[in-house]
Amino acid sequence: MMLEELCEEVWKCSLELPKNDLVKMTSGNVSGRDPETNLVVIKPSGYKYEDLTPADLVVVDLEGNVLEGHLKPSTDTATHLYVYRHRSDVFGMAHTHSPYASIFAALGEPIRPCLTACAMLGGEVPLGGYVSVGGEGIGKEIVEKIGHSLAIIMQNHGVFTIGSSASVATKMAVEVEDIAKITYFATLRGEPIWLTPDQVAEMANVYTNVYGQR
Amino acid sequence: MMLEELCEEVWKCSLELPKNDLVKMTSGNVSGRDPETNLVVIKPSGYKYEDLTPADLVVVDLEGNVLEGHLKPSTDTATHLYVYRHRSDVFGMAHTHSPYASIFAALGEPIRPCLTACAMLGGEVPLGGYVSVGGEGIGKEIVEKIGHSLAIIMQNHGVFTIGSSASVATKMAVEVEDIAKITYFATLRGEPIWLTPDQVAEMANVYTNVYGQR
Amino acid sequence: MMLEELCEEVWKCSLELPKNDLVKMTSGNVSGRDPETNLVVIKPSGYKYEDLTPADLVVVDLEGNVLEGHLKPSTDTATHLYVYRHRSDVFGMAHTHSPYASIFAALGEPIRPCLTACAMLGGEVPLGGYVSVGGEGIGKEIVEKIGHSLAIIMQNHGVFTIGSSASVATKMAVEVEDIAKITYFATLRGEPIWLTPDQVAEMANVYTNVYGQR
Amino acid sequence: MMLEELCEEVWKCSLELPKNDLVKMTSGNVSGRDPETNLVVIKPSGYKYEDLTPADLVVVDLEGNVLEGHLKPSTDTATHLYVYRHRSDVFGMAHTHSPYASIFAALGEPIRPCLTACAMLGGEVPLGGYVSVGGEGIGKEIVEKIGHSLAIIMQNHGVFTIGSSASVATKMAVEVEDIAKITYFATLRGEPIWLTPDQVAEMANVYTNVYGQR
Repeated sequence: MMLEELCEEVWKCSLELPKNDLVKMTSGNVSGRDPETNLVVIKPSGYKYEDLTPADLVVVDLEGNVLEGHLKPSTDTATHLYVYRHRSDVFGMAHTHSPYASIFAALGEPIRPCLTACAMLGGEVPLGGYVSVGGEGIGKEIVEKIGHSLAIIMQNHGVFTIGSSASVATKMAVEVEDIAKITYFATLRGEPIWLTPDQVAEMANVYTNVYGQR
Repeated sequence: MMLEELCEEVWKCSLELPKNDLVKMTSGNVSGRDPETNLVVIKPSGYKYEDLTPADLVVVDLEGNVLEGHLKPSTDTATHLYVYRHRSDVFGMAHTHSPYASIFAALGEPIRPCLTACAMLGGEVPLGGYVSVGGEGIGKEIVEKIGHSLAIIMQNHGVFTIGSSASVATKMAVEVEDIAKITYFATLRGEPIWLTPDQVAEMANVYTNVYGQR
Repeated sequence: MMLEELCEEVWKCSLELPKNDLVKMTSGNVSGRDPETNLVVIKPSGYKYEDLTPADLVVVDLEGNVLEGHLKPSTDTATHLYVYRHRSDVFGMAHTHSPYASIFAALGEPIRPCLTACAMLGGEVPLGGYVSVGGEGIGKEIVEKIGHSLAIIMQNHGVFTIGSSASVATKMAVEVEDIAKITYFATLRGEPIWLTPDQVAEMANVYTNVYGQR
Repeated sequence: MMLEELCEEVWKCSLELPKNDLVKMTSGNVSGRDPETNLVVIKPSGYKYEDLTPADLVVVDLEGNVLEGHLKPSTDTATHLYVYRHRSDVFGMAHTHSPYASIFAALGEPIRPCLTACAMLGGEVPLGGYVSVGGEGIGKEIVEKIGHSLAIIMQNHGVFTIGSSASVATKMAVEVEDIAKITYFATLRGEPIWLTPDQVAEMANVYTNVYGQR
């Protein structure tokens, strides 16, 4: 099997999605890009997570040619590949219809930062406009709108996250849903105390340079 | 045992209901119709999911005669059978009181589409009026109101889903709850950006012709 | 061990409370009354559910004398016993601070019926006034206010359910929380379509005489 | 291994956080202070709960010197130590971004008591102001504002709890989230019936002197 280690990582990340209540049944997907070959490992289309094994993942090149796999790759493959081609810093992506992030998608709103944890995502989670599913249109919208954020709300659709690996992108999918839930309920009751850009920057520095094990 | 494979499928589908938090204790039910014999396999009435085995399921004909099973069939059996008799395209049904769909039932409202995932259900989830439980009245209301949707909200009651198999109907029961949750919270905060019929149709085409494995 | 079978039932019912997200850590309790001896089996006070075994349950008589058990009985024991002494039809009780029922407790409101499932509880879930914890005061309030309902909201406190067995009372604790959640969210958005007394009565008849296995 | 028993307790408490849906991925932490040596056992920084073993915990003295452990201690270590140095009655602490408590953090509001269970925390859960993460600033704010409460909301951040042991602090982290959820939803619908200080004091007496096993 090609890219065995990356397949293992993308598979483990895929299982984090249902485990963290971000997806139901077959929706959502994770991919990872191999830094050496630029090949991408992605979830097969419409496949139940509980049936998924590392061997079910599909290996494609950046143009979308299937190099390995007995299943059809995710409907969002062209979108993942577009992002990988245009963002050389991105080596992992995740996509979900996680419920609280999707509320912002339905309302057509970004998620403004009112929690220190938002700095992990880069502050405000921007909003991408409505784009049809299937081609690379969503990828274009992501590249145009995501900026320095690690997550983006796609109007009427759901959320996409990016990162330096499939694991980071998956962690961001968990974080954005957690933050979306708290922010949604706070705005439902009143006006949250929004963080200033300086507060976000200071906290982002903690997450980047102090937090975690090296 | 008759229809062993169908019993297995209906049993697995039944277990999906509590697993996806759609039912508590004994409520809800799933049925499946055998395409060759037109016999229907359905959950026994008021039976706890954790005690359920494939052998506990009840086999009935389209007129409601019990052909196999040591337990009384679901109180909603006449409703399932009415739908099967009047919708030759339906081979599976599910019924739940899943909480977010039931909010729409309590308010007497359909679920308008504001998410691409709604296209999987056929767009707007219609509302059926209040009907007493027990006879085939709910079945009549479903056939009259469900149209091309795969789900219907029954006022003051809960939700019914249909499909080309018990598995499809069960998946729709999961989807409708997910969509109900997001749509409920979006409307609680403001006015969602509703999808146009064209957007729903375009997305439905993706789900039918592109999404998933063939 | 005395009342082995009843201890087993009360223990199993106790475990249903955390399993159905009705309690956290040590809160809540279940009891059952033996129809032959009138002895009552009840959960020990402030005891973690995951540590609980049938042998940890406490056997008391209707006056509160501990007849068996190495632990102190629930702080609510006097309340359970008061209800058993004044309601000869009650053989099981459950108490929780389940979150959605507790919202009604905090607001000081009964739960009006807007779902067919409400008929299982007897229609409207009444409200009991604020009573200090510890003595039999809550029991008196329950007996005075619960009427023909199987559940009662206790202001600023939580919910108590009764039934013909510990299992029935426990099932009602699950039902009341489910109904509280749906009703809370429906009233948050608008005015639910309330059921008429006739509709509740008709549905109660289904639950009593048609639903379930005999 | 030093302080083996305390490491075991802090480890078990740490696992309660994800189990009770108080944390996701790596966020949050628990610590415990040994009454004899004043040494503190704390979670390593940015470490996934599912990978955590008792041997991964870090032992520090009250000045923050790492005495044992192969990992970097939590970013909040200085805050925990500040509290331990200034509150001789505190032997355990927990910190989470649990969602409902975090709504109050985002809105900058304390949690007023409207449930008997609030007395377990000491009544109102106070609000601490915005403080940068990383140094002992949060610890100072906790000591200044927490008073006789066992929990404090930290603005734009999350919640900290204290107690006579890591286990008590962890239990309080579970309780404060439960209470935050109910109180949030009650205030969203209307004005809860707030408890008077006398009612809180009376109920606190029950929790201290009557409730639980001695």
